[in-house]
Amino acid sequence: MLTQPDFPAYKKLRKRAREVALASSASSALGWDMETYMPPKSLPYRAEQLAWLGGLAHRKFVAAQVGEWIAACEQQGFAADSDEGANVREWRRMYDRATKVPTRLVEKLERTRATAGQAWKKARQDSSFALFKPHLDKLLAIAKQMADCWGFKESPYDALMDGYEPGATASQVKQLFAELEPVIASVLAAARVKSESVSANLLDGHYPVAAQQAFNRKVAEAIGFDFQAGRIDTTTHPFCETLGAGDCRLTTRYNEANFVQSLYGVIHEAGHGMYEQGLPAGEFGMPNGKAVSLGIHESQSRLWENHVGRGPEFWEYWHPVACEHFPDLKRLSPAQITAAVNRVTPSFIRVEADQVTYDLHIALRFDIETKLVEGQLKTADVPAYWNERFEKMFGLKVPKDSEGCLQDVHWSHGLMGYFATYTLGNLNAAQLMGRAAVEIPELSGKLARGEYQPLLAWLREKIHSKGSRHTPGELIRLATGEPTGVRSHADYLRAKFAA
Amino acid sequence: MLTQPDFPAYKKLRKRAREVALASSASSALGWDMETYMPPKSLPYRAEQLAWLGGLAHRKFVAAQVGEWIAACEQQGFAADSDEGANVREWRRMYDRATKVPTRLVEKLERTRATAGQAWKKARQDSSFALFKPHLDKLLAIAKQMADCWGFKESPYDALMDGYEPGATASQVKQLFAELEPVIASVLAAARVKSESVSANLLDGHYPVAAQQAFNRKVAEAIGFDFQAGRIDTTTHPFCETLGAGDCRLTTRYNEANFVQSLYGVIHEAGHGMYEQGLPAGEFGMPNGKAVSLGIHESQSRLWENHVGRGPEFWEYWHPVACEHFPDLKRLSPAQITAAVNRVTPSFIRVEADQVTYDLHIALRFDIETKLVEGQLKTADVPAYWNERFEKMFGLKVPKDSEGCLQDVHWSHGLMGYFATYTLGNLNAAQLMGRAAVEIPELSGKLARGEYQPLLAWLREKIHSKGSRHTPGELIRLATGEPTGVRSHADYLRAKFAA
Repeated sequence: MLTQPDFPAYKKLRKRAREVALASSASSALGWDMETYMPPKSLPYRAEQLAWLGGLAHRKFVAAQVGEWIAACEQQGFAADSDEGANVREWRRMYDRATKVPTRLVEKLERTRATAGQAWKKARQDSSFALFKPHLDKLLAIAKQMADCWGFKESPYDALMDGYEPGATASQVKQLFAELEPVIASVLAAARVKSESVSANLLDGHYPVAAQQAFNRKVAEAIGFDFQAGRIDTTTHPFCETLGAGDCRLTTRYNEANFVQSLYGVIHEAGHGMYEQGLPAGEFGMPNGKAVSLGIHESQSRLWENHVGRGPEFWEYWHPVACEHFPDLKRLSPAQITAAVNRVTPSFIRVEADQVTYDLHIALRFDIETKLVEGQLKTADVPAYWNERFEKMFGLKVPKDSEGCLQDVHWSHGLMGYFATYTLGNLNAAQLMGRAAVEIPELSGKLARGEYQPLLAWLREKIHSKGSRHTPGELIRLATGEPTGVRSHADYLRAKFAA
Repeated sequence: MLTQPDFPAYKKLRKRAREVALASSASSALGWDMETYMPPKSLPYRAEQLAWLGGLAHRKFVAAQVGEWIAACEQQGFAADSDEGANVREWRRMYDRATKVPTRLVEKLERTRATAGQAWKKARQDSSFALFKPHLDKLLAIAKQMADCWGFKESPYDALMDGYEPGATASQVKQLFAELEPVIASVLAAARVKSESVSANLLDGHYPVAAQQAFNRKVAEAIGFDFQAGRIDTTTHPFCETLGAGDCRLTTRYNEANFVQSLYGVIHEAGHGMYEQGLPAGEFGMPNGKAVSLGIHESQSRLWENHVGRGPEFWEYWHPVACEHFPDLKRLSPAQITAAVNRVTPSFIRVEADQVTYDLHIALRFDIETKLVEGQLKTADVPAYWNERFEKMFGLKVPKDSEGCLQDVHWSHGLMGYFATYTLGNLNAAQLMGRAAVEIPELSGKLARGEYQPLLAWLREKIHSKGSRHTPGELIRLATGEPTGVRSHADYLRAKFAA
């Protein structure tokens, strides 16, 4: 009798998935090169290479045979908790998402994104929402059509979010924000008072790029990023990209007046990178070898960036090393640096936000996105709605739309249903870190001695090694004993910022 | 009536060629990354990506349909001197080369190369020909079988050489070496006397990598390498690789004790790069958009490296600029630097050879290769034959095979029929430069003022813009008025080294 992995349709699916991965990882490699080293005149041809590889990977995966193989595997009835069952579940989800939308709608999205991206850049530059509105209208209409194609129970937003966070729903996320917002409001008041004593330019100085690179590399290596299977390069917009099995590359940017931006950028991206490096290597290209969701991915980057990197132990260990690279830092104590990197002050720009106000930015976007998709808000009313809500939440009057509703690139890329994953990442990070502190003896002491291996090993076991074996919700429940919730993050914020 | 470019089979061939180019240029990009920035642990997966893309490009091109389309175009009878005729001629040549060899023989070559490459490294390290001999036997047997598959009139070597230098024959190259060798012998005697007064370590000093990079870039930009469509990176083995339309990348290596290695390496590779950058851009992937042969490619690199870079005018112009980057150079005059970079002294290693003895290295390899392929020499006799001939030609006793017949990587890669293209490059370079000096008014004065544009424009018109429109022999005849011959190079060597 055939064992389950030898079931013919299952073997064919694995082979096809491996081939799709070859094409899409080649795309990733070309995309990485485009962002890092590619000379400008090759852009049109590179676009053609990427379109060709993307089309190839897509056609290979949406082929009718693939649907038949998936159906045959479902007929076979693999146990839901088996490797095979998990792969088939994810293949089904991905196949349905890829095939239920007609090709012409996908192509329409691609075309609309291309022009919307250009329009958004101009609109943000001129701070003119009017320039972007017609594009947002089109993208919103396409998103709604796609949601209809995919189908949903409660809200069309659920169908969109499922592309980034399988199983998450708008009503569930709404509930999380409803619990989180008042917590943040109360923490914020206390945190602002505490931060008043910390000068905004305490860390300002001269930090040569080469010294930052050397220090960042030491930190990334120490927390566990494997430079034999990855690297760090420089780009305007930092990212983490996997180019193939054993090849995960981070990027960062440098500000010579302050080393903090590149350092925490690297720790954040290394968090993503260590997740990728910890996925089951032999399963590259299979669902079980893939990161399960953006919310889980973001939990890894936030955990290392904020819970570890901005934690009370971090500068105790790293201060002397940092002083070797940046002699100016000798003037500050570890506690002063810790206070500086945890300074809380409401501001307009999400990507510059502190840890307390960050999720308020997300709450606002999530509220607007769901209202747009569910038809409760018109695009024309976005700026006024944004500004009014922003003032209520942050106590700041938005001076212009480029610092308000035009600041983020996501909508112009047609990414709707994406923002909430940032907050899910924060919630998951707090929950995982809380659980790790229970399960790893003396975790705080270890972190203060620069011993990161036990924490990484714990994350490897609980999260990284699981790939997409479980849904994100189930994965967090298995790792922490409870579903994604607000409690751990709320406790953490209170203890750290309002104690 | 259909115009020729609209002939259906021709249009299909263009479309297919474009797709093959997309796959193979993606391979080139991944290959470049592998040599420059790839982290080591991703090697196995990168090999899988490259094998997949290579297989895809191969299958797309050798498909039976492609043969039918080529045959239909041949039936249609495009004029031999039309764009269409030239493309079809090259497609036919490439298609026959790709399809006449059975797949199992190609696979056998791949497997044999892989182990032979490892064995050669060890053999060279231990200077043990015995370690490499069994692999050379296998590779030679495969090369002969392939030559039989491709077919030939006079010598199986012709079939092998045709892969690198379409239309060239062993007997023609033999004749060239027969004329060239006595010229070199007589020039060498005089050149050695002249070089005795030049100290071997005249240029030794400390040249920081960053200063070398800055200076090399200035030179490469000045001669015409377009950094908007290319770049320079660092690798152990310098190369020039085209990653797509508008994307040609050079690499070099640095020796901080002497800037000459990286500088002339960059000028050489930039010569290759400017050829690639000057090919008809819209024809990327078509034969008419491709470099026609290695001998023509090498003519471009040698022309810029030797005729321009080691010419009498070069340091007149660059000396003050070089002194800005390398203040130590102020102690030397332009004439002294020129003499140092043109020092002639026989030595064992081809890649370190001066301009006079270089072609003797090639003559020796060509002689051995043809004798091996034609069955006049046994592999077991290669070391003895090499050493005996080397001593006659160079007046030096080869101390060990690692400095003799084991020094070059080519045979271990299964590259047979390749070496002669280096000398064809030298002959073509001298012939082109001779013609350019006639057709461009005051060329020498222009070079002395750092005005390289007229020379580049002339090469663009005569060589680069032609792609594979003509056979290499015809291209040189059209550009210089005569077929590739020894006279120009002989005159040049005599004038430069024995005057």
